[in-house]
Amino acid sequence: MQEITQLHAIFDRTRGYINRFMGIIQPIIDAAQDEHTRLYYHHILEEEEQRMGRLQELVPYLENVSGKESLAQLSDRELSQLLSDVNLERFGLHNFREHLELSLYEFQDDETRTTLDGMREKTHADYLQVKEIMASLSGRFSDGSHPDLTDHDEGHDIHQVDHLKASATAAHGVASVIKHAAPAKTAAPGKKGLTVGSLKGH
Amino acid sequence: MQEITQLHAIFDRTRGYINRFMGIIQPIIDAAQDEHTRLYYHHILEEEEQRMGRLQELVPYLENVSGKESLAQLSDRELSQLLSDVNLERFGLHNFREHLELSLYEFQDDETRTTLDGMREKTHADYLQVKEIMASLSGRFSDGSHPDLTDHDEGHDIHQVDHLKASATAAHGVASVIKHAAPAKTAAPGKKGLTVGSLKGH
Repeated sequence: MQEITQLHAIFDRTRGYINRFMGIIQPIIDAAQDEHTRLYYHHILEEEEQRMGRLQELVPYLENVSGKESLAQLSDRELSQLLSDVNLERFGLHNFREHLELSLYEFQDDETRTTLDGMREKTHADYLQVKEIMASLSGRFSDGSHPDLTDHDEGHDIHQVDHLKASATAAHGVASVIKHAAPAKTAAPGKKGLTVGSLKGH
Repeated sequence: MQEITQLHAIFDRTRGYINRFMGIIQPIIDAAQDEHTRLYYHHILEEEEQRMGRLQELVPYLENVSGKESLAQLSDRELSQLLSDVNLERFGLHNFREHLELSLYEFQDDETRTTLDGMREKTHADYLQVKEIMASLSGRFSDGSHPDLTDHDEGHDIHQVDHLKASATAAHGVASVIKHAAPAKTAAPGKKGLTVGSLKGH
């Protein structure tokens, strides 16, 4: 059941990442001065909220399954459903990686960029590991059926681009239209408040 | 089985819309002059590809179910799975509406804007109808369980914005950085080829 334990760790980690990402993006939405910027980041956050909703069911289920002695305790139907759910979240990891990459074009300060790029790197590694685990699990189907494990990194040059590097020299981020910093939030003494101004102004 | 027939019509229609949308967006990706624009539209198209992959399984399944005499021929487990799949595609319709709205900020020509806005309007109506159908279907569970029918239009002012109007006066679309028109494609005699130039130049 090592694979199930690994899947549990991956999807539990990405739940934490979603929360960190939301904390970084929400100030942009709050400070947006035009409907396009607001819609753009609202849309990305909403998709991550939907993913979080699914993970809140999947992660406890994986924890439950990891407590079983062997996958043979799952029926073919249960294993098929599990693989289908995990496959959807494989796409979810792929899409999250792209949300992180798109956000790199927004922020100029090193701290936020390092945070986003760290999550991007680990998310991509998690995506590849989920793919490997799925290939292993699908081999256990008694009827020999296999899910479609199309790798979204194949056939698209855009996935080979180093977006950390490309975004560092990008002349215009999507939210270059944000003109005003958000009002400074109350921060811990001696600690800078996280505002669009503090994120973008350095 | 009227509801299942309606669901089948809705998801069959949105498959056609995905193809039309892809035809409108692909030239932007092909002509993009920077990695951010390319990633942005590639990402949107990839999410729609994933949705298409799911619909290619769901639409024939709905067709099959609509041929049954009554939903009572489905087990609780089958009905639950069906509702879960339809709920995912309810989110898919909502996200597609936002992809269409975001794209309105890209195009200045009336023909493309009218096409995008027409699909947006029908997609939103379809989204609302799916929600109604799900509420009706979930009442038939013998155990009284109900799926979460959270309306993504509640609590977000952004969904009340008329993006057709807002985008008409927007100073900068995301792809304002696209500098060169794509090479003109071969078009039917007397009919203008659909290129980024023809889309953006008017």
